[in-house]
Formats: sequence, C-alpha cells, structure tokens
Amino acid sequence: MLIVAITGMPGAGKSTAAKALESRRFKRIVMGDVIREETRRRGLEPSEKDTAKVMLELREKYGPGAVAEVCVRLLKTMKEQAVVIDGIRSPAEVEVFARVGKVRLIAIHASRERRFTLLKERGRSDAPTSRASFDERDKRELSIGVGNAVALADESLSNEHATPDELGRRAVELVESWVASAG
Amino acid sequence: MLIVAITGMPGAGKSTAAKALESRRFKRIVMGDVIREETRRRGLEPSEKDTAKVMLELREKYGPGAVAEVCVRLLKTMKEQAVVIDGIRSPAEVEVFARVGKVRLIAIHASRERRFTLLKERGRSDAPTSRASFDERDKRELSIGVGNAVALADESLSNEHATPDELGRRAVELVESWVASAG
Repeated sequence: MLIVAITGMPGAGKSTAAKALESRRFKRIVMGDVIREETRRRGLEPSEKDTAKVMLELREKYGPGAVAEVCVRLLKTMKEQAVVIDGIRSPAEVEVFARVGKVRLIAIHASRERRFTLLKERGRSDAPTSRASFDERDKRELSIGVGNAVALADESLSNEHATPDELGRRAVELVESWVASAG
Repeated sequence: MLIVAITGMPGAGKSTAAKALESRRFKRIVMGDVIREETRRRGLEPSEKDTAKVMLELREKYGPGAVAEVCVRLLKTMKEQAVVIDGIRSPAEVEVFARVGKVRLIAIHASRERRFTLLKERGRSDAPTSRASFDERDKRELSIGVGNAVALADESLSNEHATPDELGRRAVELVESWVASAG
C-alpha cells in the first residue's frame, strides 16, 4: 500500500492538497477527524480548546503515535492500493504508518501571516479566535513534532502564493510522479 | 537592516541559496564558520565530530542563541542595508537577529536521500562519513530546533530537483520581491 502522508503547520493547506488527491483515486483519511470524533464521543464540543485537550490526552495515554495507530487499524480493513493521510503531526506518526505501507511524506508550507489568513477564511469550528490562540496552537503543534515532520518530508510544496487549484494540481503531479517511478 | 536568514536541514542547499544572494548585493555571514573558527581556536580540527561538540558547548554555555549573538556583534559593526545569514538553526536564533533588523526567513528543503547525496558530493571537512553519521547529524540539528525554524519560515524553496543555478535564481527572485514590496 502506498501511503501519501501530508504534514504542515495549521492552516498551511494540508487538506487542500489531500482533497485534490482524493478527487483522483486516493482514499483520504483525516487524522483530525479521528480526534474530533473522539472529542464528540466524550460529549465535548469539537472546539479548538477541547480538540487540543483530547489530542494531548490521547498522546499522553497511548504515546506519540496514538492517533496514527487508530488510522492504521482502519487501513488494515481497506483494500486500497494507495491512500492519503491528511494531517501528520510528527515523525513518530510516520513510523507507525511505515509498518503497514510505503510512506511518502509531503510538507505543505506557508508563512505565519498566510496561515492565519487561511484559517480565518476557512472558519472551521476549531479556527483560531485571535492571534494569541493561533500562536498558542503553533507552539502546541511544534511541541509534538510537526516541525520535524516538515523538515524530514520527501518534498515541500509552498502554498504562499498558490490558489487552491494550483496547490492541488502540484500535489497530484508530485504523487503521480512517485507512482510512475515506482513502476 | 534587512536580514535574510536561511535555514534548512544539513545538505538541503542553504549555502547555494545564500551564495547566489551574496553574488548580488548581500553581504553573507556563515553561522557554521563561526563554529568552525571557534573549533580551530580551541586547537581542534573542524571535523564533523569536533564542530558538533563545540556547537553544543557554545549553546550550553551561552544559551540557544549563542552563535547568533556572535553574528549580531559583527552586524553591529556593519553599514550594510541588507545581509544574508547562512545557517539558522532555531527560532531562538531568529529572535536574536530580530533585535537588530527586519528578519525574513527562507527554508531550503530537500528529502533525506537528496541531502545525503548533496553532502557527499560537497565533501566539506564535516561531510558525513556514513548514513549513520548523517542520521545522527539530522537528529542533532532537529534537537536544537531546526525543524521549528523550517516550519515557521516565511517561504520554503524546494531543492529536490533544482540545479544550483535554479535554486540560486529562485532565492534571488524571492528576496528581490521582498525588497520591492518593502518600498
């Protein structure tokens, strides 16, 4: 199984890239959904504060690969040749996925200013309510290792000036080139 | 003073980008040279092992911004309008430079395989002698925060398929656009 894993800071454009791949032939698994579902299962709202709390609790209880482990259980029930994992947060998660397939990691990159703007525009339930909460979220993500995942990625795509269509097209081209070179 | 700071994992192509900027009108300061000079000053060889030791000792003794502090002392003696800092290793170093100028941070990115190849080709005195020493160096750089600097950069340039000329040209174009938008 080819596992195309997407990492990046909050708001960088991970889901834009992952959805473009989904629109081709890739089944998409959203790591954040696993956390949001667990948050709801506990009777909490999937707000920024509560999803962060649940994410950190899962990691504390089951280790840095906890969310990836849940995804891997799901992968094992699937017959797909290739999947896209949306929302890798650390090299530890990459290692969990590497147990069940060939992982290729893409980092989506954008500046802080650009990411803040994109997050506000997106307006998801866990969007930052202020610059302070945005900075806090950056710090939290870096503390669990997202910077290391970004630095160790197989390729980095800049979303600083791209339209969603352009970013999506570049992600698809990149993955198609990997698939082609794998024969 | 505009401070164009360049970060990235070992072998990603930081110096290629920084030298291209130097060939225009930017004075280049190499953070690694500060460490190599200090290594020689102590009567040691600037090998991978000894430069790593000195770098970690400087940081332990004077804090995570130690090498940047040495560079800042140098910057204060300079009259340049713009400089390029080659080899940022952490957000703490960026903060040190932000005290004396407007910092724009560029991350140069390449995959592990590509970086290993580039380092071997470069053959500098501190080039890795094996895959194990390369992995160890990656780990050391990540432990001091280079992944966080990469993730928080203002722009990321991929050096996965670029020639040195192409990478240099893109770095120059990027910085020229920053200079132009600053008025």
